[in-house]
Amino acid sequence: MERMKRLTVLGATGSVGRRALELIGRFPGQFRVEGLAARGTNPDHVAELCRIHRPRVVALADERAVDVLARALGHPRPEILGGASGLVALARDVPADVVLSAIVGAAGLLPTMAAIETGKAVAIANKEPLVMAGSLMTAAARRHKAPLLPVDSEHSAIFQCIEGQQRSQVHRILLTASGGPFRRMSKADMASVTVEDALNHPTWKMGAKITVDSATLMNKGLEVIEARWLFGLPAEQVQVVVHPQSIIHSMVEYVDGSVIAQLGVADMGIPILYALNYPNRLPWPGERLDLTKVGSLTFEEPDVERFPCLALCLQALAAAGCAPAVLNAANEIAVGAFLAGRIRYTQIAEIIALALDRVPGRALDSIETCVDIDAETRRFVEERLPGFTRGVAAAVSGRAGR
Amino acid sequence: MERMKRLTVLGATGSVGRRALELIGRFPGQFRVEGLAARGTNPDHVAELCRIHRPRVVALADERAVDVLARALGHPRPEILGGASGLVALARDVPADVVLSAIVGAAGLLPTMAAIETGKAVAIANKEPLVMAGSLMTAAARRHKAPLLPVDSEHSAIFQCIEGQQRSQVHRILLTASGGPFRRMSKADMASVTVEDALNHPTWKMGAKITVDSATLMNKGLEVIEARWLFGLPAEQVQVVVHPQSIIHSMVEYVDGSVIAQLGVADMGIPILYALNYPNRLPWPGERLDLTKVGSLTFEEPDVERFPCLALCLQALAAAGCAPAVLNAANEIAVGAFLAGRIRYTQIAEIIALALDRVPGRALDSIETCVDIDAETRRFVEERLPGFTRGVAAAVSGRAGR
Repeated sequence: MERMKRLTVLGATGSVGRRALELIGRFPGQFRVEGLAARGTNPDHVAELCRIHRPRVVALADERAVDVLARALGHPRPEILGGASGLVALARDVPADVVLSAIVGAAGLLPTMAAIETGKAVAIANKEPLVMAGSLMTAAARRHKAPLLPVDSEHSAIFQCIEGQQRSQVHRILLTASGGPFRRMSKADMASVTVEDALNHPTWKMGAKITVDSATLMNKGLEVIEARWLFGLPAEQVQVVVHPQSIIHSMVEYVDGSVIAQLGVADMGIPILYALNYPNRLPWPGERLDLTKVGSLTFEEPDVERFPCLALCLQALAAAGCAPAVLNAANEIAVGAFLAGRIRYTQIAEIIALALDRVPGRALDSIETCVDIDAETRRFVEERLPGFTRGVAAAVSGRAGR
Repeated sequence: MERMKRLTVLGATGSVGRRALELIGRFPGQFRVEGLAARGTNPDHVAELCRIHRPRVVALADERAVDVLARALGHPRPEILGGASGLVALARDVPADVVLSAIVGAAGLLPTMAAIETGKAVAIANKEPLVMAGSLMTAAARRHKAPLLPVDSEHSAIFQCIEGQQRSQVHRILLTASGGPFRRMSKADMASVTVEDALNHPTWKMGAKITVDSATLMNKGLEVIEARWLFGLPAEQVQVVVHPQSIIHSMVEYVDGSVIAQLGVADMGIPILYALNYPNRLPWPGERLDLTKVGSLTFEEPDVERFPCLALCLQALAAAGCAPAVLNAANEIAVGAFLAGRIRYTQIAEIIALALDRVPGRALDSIETCVDIDAETRRFVEERLPGFTRGVAAAVSGRAGR
C-alpha cells in the first residue's frame, strides 16, 4: 500500500477547507491530517474537525479562541497555537507532504510562504498571495523545490492541460469565466445591485468574498495574474473567455492550433482532490459530467467596459512591482465594505482605481514590502470609505422605490 | 538544428496524402520525403509530386502505371516499384522515421504491417487495417517497438488527451461524431438518400468512401474498434457522443471526474502535422479556433436504431476473431456499390449484417487469415449484390417523382 499523504489544511473552516476535509474523510487510509489552521471565529467547528481528523497541531489566528478550543477538546488534545505567528509555525514546522493553502485573502501570504520555504508541496486555493507576491512566491518555490499545485478550478484545468506537454509550445491560455450573475446587466442597472444579487452566483457555490469578486469579474482578473505566475507566461498570453455554463474550466491553445480543455461538473471537490493527491487521480464519489444532458456550451468575449475590475487587474499586472498588492488590498476592503452595506457595488471598482492611482508605487523587493504596502493600502482605502459611503442610503431607497 | 524527419507517404494521391504533402512543403528543412506510394490511377499527379518532393523510391499499386510514370519523369528519376509487393517493399526497405499510412481501405494492411515489422513509427490515417487486424498490428508494434501515431482527428485528440496521464486512470473515452448529413433524417426518408446527399458532409472535407461511412456512422463504429486497439481499452470504455459542430475532436474522462478534451478547427492538417512531427508541435499556418465565433457546442446520444452500422461495429468487435475484417470488407464493397448507384443507402447496413451472419467466423491467427477472410467476404458480397440491386431503379425514380 502507498504511504498515506500527510496534510496540513490552512483555512480549515472556509469553503474550500471544509470541502477538502469532508472529501478526505471519504478516503480513509489515503490521507492523514497533521495540521489544521482556522481563523477561530467558530471554535466549536474547529473542535468538531479535531475530533474527526485528529490533527497533531492546530493554529487559530484569533488568539482569544485558543483557550475556548482547549476547553472544548479536553484531554488528550492537539497542540494549539495562536495568532499570525502560530499559523506560520504550523505551516513551517508540522511535517506534511501537502499544505492546502485556503485562507481567504492576504492573511494567507505568510503561512503559505512558510510552507514553500520548507519545501512542502503547496496546494494553492487562495489566489491573493500569488496576486500580491507572485514573483517572490514562485522564486521561493523554485529555490526550495516546493511544487505549487493549483486548486482553483481554472488553474487546475490549465495545469492538467499542460501536463505532459511542452510549455514552450503553448500559444495562449484561455481562462474561462462564467460571467457571474450580472453578465447581461446594463451598466446603468449595476448602480443598484444589492448584496443579495451579488451573492447569487449562477454556477459555483463559494464563500462571500470570492462570490462578489466573481460578480465584478475581479476574480477573473486575479486569476489572470495567478496564471501569469503559476504558468510563467506573460499576461498577453492569458485570455479570458466568458463561458456561462462553467463546464469547460479552462483551456490551453498550442502553437499547432490544438486546444486542450479540461471539463467537469462545477464542483470544487474535483480540483481539490486532484491537487491533494497529485499525480494520482482518486475515484470521484460525486456526480459525473454528462454532456448530453448539459445542452449547449457557449462562449463570448468579456466586456471590460461593464466590468472595469478586469481591466484594473491587467493594469496592475502591467505596472508590476507592488501594484497587484495595492489592487488586492483595495479590493478586499472595498468588497468588505460592500458586503457590510457601506458602499455601492459599482464603487468597488472606483475604490480600486483610486488606490492604484494614489498609493505610491514600489518595487516588490521582499515579502515585508508586500505586507507594508498591503497595510498602507488598507489604511488609505479605509480613510476614504466615508466619502464613498455618502449617497449609498439614497441609492438603496431609490432601488426600493423602483 | 534538428535532423530532418524522413518520411514515407503511403497513399500520396488520396485526401490525407495530398494534404500531408502540401503541408510538408510549407516546412522546408523539417521533413524529407524518402518514399511515395500511390494507386497509380493518375500517373501525372504522381509525377508532379515526384518533381516537388524528390523521393528516392516510388511505388504504384497499378503495375501498368509504372512505365507511364517513368516516361513522364525522364531522367534522373526515383526508383519505381510496381504492384502490391512494390508497396510492401517501399514501406519495409526505404529508411524512414515515420511512415504515413493513408491508403484507403484494406489495401493498406500489408504495407502498414511491413512498416511496423521494421520498427518504423507509423502515422495511421487509414483505420481499416486496425479494424481488420488490430490485435496482430498492435502486438507487432509492441514487438518491434514501432510507435503507432493516430492521424484520425478523433484518435489524435484521444492520444493528446492521454499524453502525460496515467492510462490506468482512464474511466472512458468519449469519441465525438458529427452525426453526418442525416443526423435529423427519419428512418423512412433514408431509403431514398442519393449519392450526392451522402457525399455532402456538414463539417469535414474527406474522400468519398469515408464520407459515406460518416453518413452511415459506420466510420464512427470503425473508430470505436480503432480506439479499442490504439488505446488498449475494452469497447465498453469507448462511448460515442454526437457533437454536430465537430469542434471537440474527442475526450477522455478520468476516474476523478475530470474530462480532458482536444478542440480545434475541422482541418485534417492539424492531426496530420501532429503525427508527422510528434512529439513537437509545429506552428499551424492555417485558421485557428475562435470559440467566441463558433456560437455553441452541443451534444446528444447516437441513435443506433436509425444508424444500424454503429451497432454492427460493436457486434463485430464483441464477436472478435475475424468478424471485424468481415464487417470491413462487406462495408467496402457495399459502399462502392452504393457510390456506383447499384444499391440503396439503407442496403449498406443490410449487406454488412448479412455478411456478419453468413461468412463463417474464424480466429484471427495471422495476417494471411485476415487477407483470406477479406477476399472471401468480398466474393460473398459481390455474389449477392445483384439481389440487392433489383428495385434500386424503382426507388430512384420514386424519389425523382416526390
